[in-house]
Amino acid sequence: MTVLDIPSGIPAHVDTPAPGDPRLARLSLNQRTTANWDLREAVEGAVAAGLPAIGLWREPVAEVGVDVARRIVDDAGLRVSSLCRGGFFTASDRAERTRAHEDNLRALDEAAGLGTKALVLVPGGLPAGDKDLAGARARAAEAIAALVPAAVVRGVTLGIEPMNPIYAADRGVISTLAQALDIAEQFAPHEVGVVVDTFHLWWEPGVYAQIARAGERIVSYQVCDWITPLPADSLLARGMMGDGHVDFPAFTRAVAAAGYTGDVEVEIFHADVWAAPGDQVIATMARRYVELVQPHL
Amino acid sequence: MTVLDIPSGIPAHVDTPAPGDPRLARLSLNQRTTANWDLREAVEGAVAAGLPAIGLWREPVAEVGVDVARRIVDDAGLRVSSLCRGGFFTASDRAERTRAHEDNLRALDEAAGLGTKALVLVPGGLPAGDKDLAGARARAAEAIAALVPAAVVRGVTLGIEPMNPIYAADRGVISTLAQALDIAEQFAPHEVGVVVDTFHLWWEPGVYAQIARAGERIVSYQVCDWITPLPADSLLARGMMGDGHVDFPAFTRAVAAAGYTGDVEVEIFHADVWAAPGDQVIATMARRYVELVQPHL
Repeated sequence: MTVLDIPSGIPAHVDTPAPGDPRLARLSLNQRTTANWDLREAVEGAVAAGLPAIGLWREPVAEVGVDVARRIVDDAGLRVSSLCRGGFFTASDRAERTRAHEDNLRALDEAAGLGTKALVLVPGGLPAGDKDLAGARARAAEAIAALVPAAVVRGVTLGIEPMNPIYAADRGVISTLAQALDIAEQFAPHEVGVVVDTFHLWWEPGVYAQIARAGERIVSYQVCDWITPLPADSLLARGMMGDGHVDFPAFTRAVAAAGYTGDVEVEIFHADVWAAPGDQVIATMARRYVELVQPHL
Repeated sequence: MTVLDIPSGIPAHVDTPAPGDPRLARLSLNQRTTANWDLREAVEGAVAAGLPAIGLWREPVAEVGVDVARRIVDDAGLRVSSLCRGGFFTASDRAERTRAHEDNLRALDEAAGLGTKALVLVPGGLPAGDKDLAGARARAAEAIAALVPAAVVRGVTLGIEPMNPIYAADRGVISTLAQALDIAEQFAPHEVGVVVDTFHLWWEPGVYAQIARAGERIVSYQVCDWITPLPADSLLARGMMGDGHVDFPAFTRAVAAAGYTGDVEVEIFHADVWAAPGDQVIATMARRYVELVQPHL
């Protein structure tokens, strides 16, 4: 029987790596890739496929509580490669920003409780009706600075995630790795790092030089593809590696050359991926990973 | 009767400027904003609204031929603010690149024949299956260099249009004004300039400094808005000024401070704008222009 990749439906180029395959030693399932699974199902799916790590999201963790989540993950023998996500601190209203700060403190508690070293920060977009992008960016930088002491106490590194400009208005005002590093470099590497995500950064002029500049500040390497035509819902535009335009071998070599030795999270937001059976999604992402990413780490 | 703006349907904030209003002295109708009009209709529409200029596209010009197009525009007393578009020279196949070069020579002939100083260059995307973005960018820069002598002979300035990264894969591999200027600055300002378009550049970190750097190289200032949620067809995502997130006053002040004294083209790609009567679209764009852009020139 021919094995088909998801969501492309094209025949797989390589065999699905079996559990125990050393090529899987750094592959992590970002929980959103199997969005219809709850935490327990995602952990079981990762284990069944032989993955050693999982990237957790706060909402499914909250469904069971941090302590139970930690036990589920520990019992399964998985690492938590990162927790998504803090941030969203660009409100123009001061009280709202205070609430965001407090929520980020809770996110740091959760990250520490889950035993992960990285809290992914999505900066947030422009407040409704506010067109002052520079102002929103400045508020994001201030909010990050305000979180650093709490992060240090908890032993968690803040990971700024620069986001594709497609999301600059409504989700993430920090648009390039260069811009994220300008903020991160005001702090020690164990305090503030960056999330390097192929979907967000593949187009950035000079991005390989910026990855080299990031060096030990890379707290998470996340992979998925930029696909065209862009799906109708731009929030579900993140495709399976190999289905789009990202040069994964070159990008991955740059991340490896920067000294990154951590897990590689596959984070895909795509309606057809979310509609597919989770175990088949993981099998496809593992195949694509060993084909396009792992040989270049 | 309340006048409604297109496509928002919200009441107009300001009166429609009448023909002869000095505030219209630099407003140009980019032909694609009224995509359902042919050249003659667009010229008549611009004249009826009191606009002094029009930005032409090659396809509707070709329908009547350059000589007739020039006569229509001249008889109407309009300036041609720019011709869209040359470019699309990123093919990996050499023969295809040669064909693109020859087509760009024809575009330069047309620009000269129409009496415009600016040929807008859309770089082109990645060839099918090709993931070497740096290579495509290098080919774009080479192709621009190869066009310069022909542009100089014809008295036309090449205008590199950096495009929003949303189009980096399929349309325009030059993604920032900084990147466009790195190419343009290898030539004299009358040889190679840049197109500054709010939709493409509003998110660029440090864009106001880049606009200052561009100075006399700005061959066209094009305005439309970045709207959210992003329309399902990303090619039709360009909204009416004021309907989205762009800070037109601040952006326009930066362009003015750089010394730009040319026309301001309104270039909107949006299904609802294209479906609306052209005269109402022009009326809305003139109102939004005198409200958000013109006072800051």
